[in-house]
Amino acid sequence: MVQATALPRNEVGIETVLGILKQRFGDRLQTGQSIREQHGHTTTWIVNQSPDAVVFPESTAEVSEIVKACAAHKVPVIPFGTGTSLEGHVNAPAGGISVDLSQMNQILTVNSEDLDCVIQPGVTREQLNTHLRDQGLFFPIDPGANASLGGMASTRASGTNAVRYGTMKDNVLALEVVMPDGEVIRTAQRAKKSSAGYDLTRLMIGSEGTLGLITEVTLKLQGIPEAISSARCSFPTVDAACRAVMMTIQFGIPVARIEMLDVQSVQAANAYSKLSLPETPLLLLEFHGSEAGVVEQAETFGSIAEDFGGVDFEATTSTEERNKLWQARHDMYWASLQLRPGASGISTDVCVPISRLAECVTAAQDKVAELGLMGPTVGHVGDGNFHTLLLIDMENHDEKAKADEFVGWLNDMAISMDGTCTGEHGIGQGKRPYLIKELGAATTYMKAIKAALDPDNIMNPGKIL
Amino acid sequence: MVQATALPRNEVGIETVLGILKQRFGDRLQTGQSIREQHGHTTTWIVNQSPDAVVFPESTAEVSEIVKACAAHKVPVIPFGTGTSLEGHVNAPAGGISVDLSQMNQILTVNSEDLDCVIQPGVTREQLNTHLRDQGLFFPIDPGANASLGGMASTRASGTNAVRYGTMKDNVLALEVVMPDGEVIRTAQRAKKSSAGYDLTRLMIGSEGTLGLITEVTLKLQGIPEAISSARCSFPTVDAACRAVMMTIQFGIPVARIEMLDVQSVQAANAYSKLSLPETPLLLLEFHGSEAGVVEQAETFGSIAEDFGGVDFEATTSTEERNKLWQARHDMYWASLQLRPGASGISTDVCVPISRLAECVTAAQDKVAELGLMGPTVGHVGDGNFHTLLLIDMENHDEKAKADEFVGWLNDMAISMDGTCTGEHGIGQGKRPYLIKELGAATTYMKAIKAALDPDNIMNPGKIL
Repeated sequence: MVQATALPRNEVGIETVLGILKQRFGDRLQTGQSIREQHGHTTTWIVNQSPDAVVFPESTAEVSEIVKACAAHKVPVIPFGTGTSLEGHVNAPAGGISVDLSQMNQILTVNSEDLDCVIQPGVTREQLNTHLRDQGLFFPIDPGANASLGGMASTRASGTNAVRYGTMKDNVLALEVVMPDGEVIRTAQRAKKSSAGYDLTRLMIGSEGTLGLITEVTLKLQGIPEAISSARCSFPTVDAACRAVMMTIQFGIPVARIEMLDVQSVQAANAYSKLSLPETPLLLLEFHGSEAGVVEQAETFGSIAEDFGGVDFEATTSTEERNKLWQARHDMYWASLQLRPGASGISTDVCVPISRLAECVTAAQDKVAELGLMGPTVGHVGDGNFHTLLLIDMENHDEKAKADEFVGWLNDMAISMDGTCTGEHGIGQGKRPYLIKELGAATTYMKAIKAALDPDNIMNPGKIL
Repeated sequence: MVQATALPRNEVGIETVLGILKQRFGDRLQTGQSIREQHGHTTTWIVNQSPDAVVFPESTAEVSEIVKACAAHKVPVIPFGTGTSLEGHVNAPAGGISVDLSQMNQILTVNSEDLDCVIQPGVTREQLNTHLRDQGLFFPIDPGANASLGGMASTRASGTNAVRYGTMKDNVLALEVVMPDGEVIRTAQRAKKSSAGYDLTRLMIGSEGTLGLITEVTLKLQGIPEAISSARCSFPTVDAACRAVMMTIQFGIPVARIEMLDVQSVQAANAYSKLSLPETPLLLLEFHGSEAGVVEQAETFGSIAEDFGGVDFEATTSTEERNKLWQARHDMYWASLQLRPGASGISTDVCVPISRLAECVTAAQDKVAELGLMGPTVGHVGDGNFHTLLLIDMENHDEKAKADEFVGWLNDMAISMDGTCTGEHGIGQGKRPYLIKELGAATTYMKAIKAALDPDNIMNPGKIL
């Protein structure tokens, strides 16, 4: 396990706040060891740092009360959505109160005429899309997990549809936020665009709960396209697949999704999701548009793919086949873990300018081989973002050292290519050293903003900065 | 003229900095009255507040030197692009140094494979698009004026293409910024997406030079579509035209542009641009896509328009006809001013959720009539954004009072409809009271950020907050 540094605890403050919250929230404040551990980090090799208690508010006013109590006694507040983050975002290195937002899971308003909706932060992406389906609408952002939308906003999440629809930063119109002093603000109105003052919406998105706690999200929605078709195509090498992607993007085909699986990932998907995909590097695509439009897009892609040695090109508009393929893609994290039972997963998350994609993926695979590691790779390749998932025996110190070496080497390489160490997972605890390598002096001003808004550093301390 | 409040001047500091900069920059520091006035506000009825000097840096290092000198002596720094802003952004209410970035007008790199480019802030949008044309690329954001891209980033500008391509916030990948202490930062790398830390890129976009001075911009580019077609369609009423727009957006037609002109605006365009458009409310559209795609889009729009009484629907792919129509649209501000020679223009800029658009535009027109004013109206209606341009005789106190009444009334109405007082022009000096009405408590935290990054309030003081 990666030992995240523990921070000094304010024992007196924590005791006081526990007393206040116990009296106010009764059974909605939980302090059992098991529930506290569930609310620390559980998904990757970062060590679990449990909060002192978990509280389950049911309204913005209750969140404000909690934050005010914590602010008065300088006690950490750690927002919790579904706990699916990969970089230790929900850990409590200085103890404090985990604010579990799962009870704030109401879809408040769907403004179908305006293609937007207002939701509470605990609503999950699947819950929202199930609710929207009958109205012919959907919300496109889809990280692998069925995460909460508040958490997705906090980490600037994206997923397979980002190549066409953007990330959370592009799909949130406004936020309600409980600030570190407990005050409640709205960051924007519901207009589709605005030049009114500093963009606090975007400042909060990706701030990982360190500047405030999101209690309401106004999201842009999309109409379900008239036609959706999926396609898959196999390639002789990862390099060939990446080059086909680069050409597709440069050609301006408005693909909705374009995902790559390397050979090991295809094998994992076949085993886990009971598929029989050809075991070579694979691209999965989706096209959204009119009936004629999706046919045109698929044909144009098909001829690009051919130029790069693509074979077994198959397109389908069958909903069942499509769903099976994309469910398999969303299950890749779990499928890949099965390639080496008992191993722990360490997911990398670099994102580079697309002209460097083939070079970066190929170099990563060579490095994994050189180190003798196992690292199936999948990617949101249309955005230049890919995940090599190292499968590591945590009892083996040599392997762990090599994994550390790989992660550092890959992040450094992506940064040297004018890319980022994190395309969508966030900084959390795990990537803090790389943020400084990536953005240098800019982090000084991030710290100044943090200090101005949260002078006592109570909001999710030990993350990002 | 609207009398913007003058702020206290730091005479000693200003004298000292003028001496330092004169020695360092020689003739590139100008203090003549005429050039100083040209670098204050000149476009609308807000009173001109000239800076004490104008300096013309040629590099980021020089900008950093200037800002460091001003920071050391607590002297205001006012960034200047092309001076086309409408809300007093370039005024110097406390005096200080106007930093004219017109000499920093180099296109540094075009990464055509990555669909991005890196430019200096003084590059104008027309200059960039002329440069890109041969490579089959374009930059879509197009405010009416041929503004500088640094200025467009600073005000979060948009224009006619925003309905499809978004605003400056959606089309900037990264910025280089000279911070208020003179340090130079980069806000992001060139990857298409990132979850690395606070989104300083978006914080700077729309901050109107109050948090730092943009010295380099990395922009997303678009491939010139395979096919472009334009269309126009006349409607019996503004309400009918707006309702056709609402249906078009809700139907998910990916229009690239959808602009409305009311009767007076059509008359103005006919006179100024020598056109012969039917003198009824008009929609101008543009479709981008494949040859088949643009035909399909135009047909779908055509049948929606018919349902709302649209007539004289004409589509064209002729470049010449298209350019003539869109040039007329871009010249609307000047054309409208000619409707009443000698009058001053006061452009409103509200933006509302699209479901409220017809109601808001109609109410605005009724109010203009009720007050006995003249206010031709055009709009980026696909985004719910429109401009009623009041044409006012500035010698007539009664008219001026009515204009003030209208502006306040319209901003209040838009805010009450969950909209904004500014879709794209920014707050500047003119809209400061409305920012507080619109975002309330959020402005407290904007002030905290401003104070943290610019404790001596030297960066464009008296704007936004």
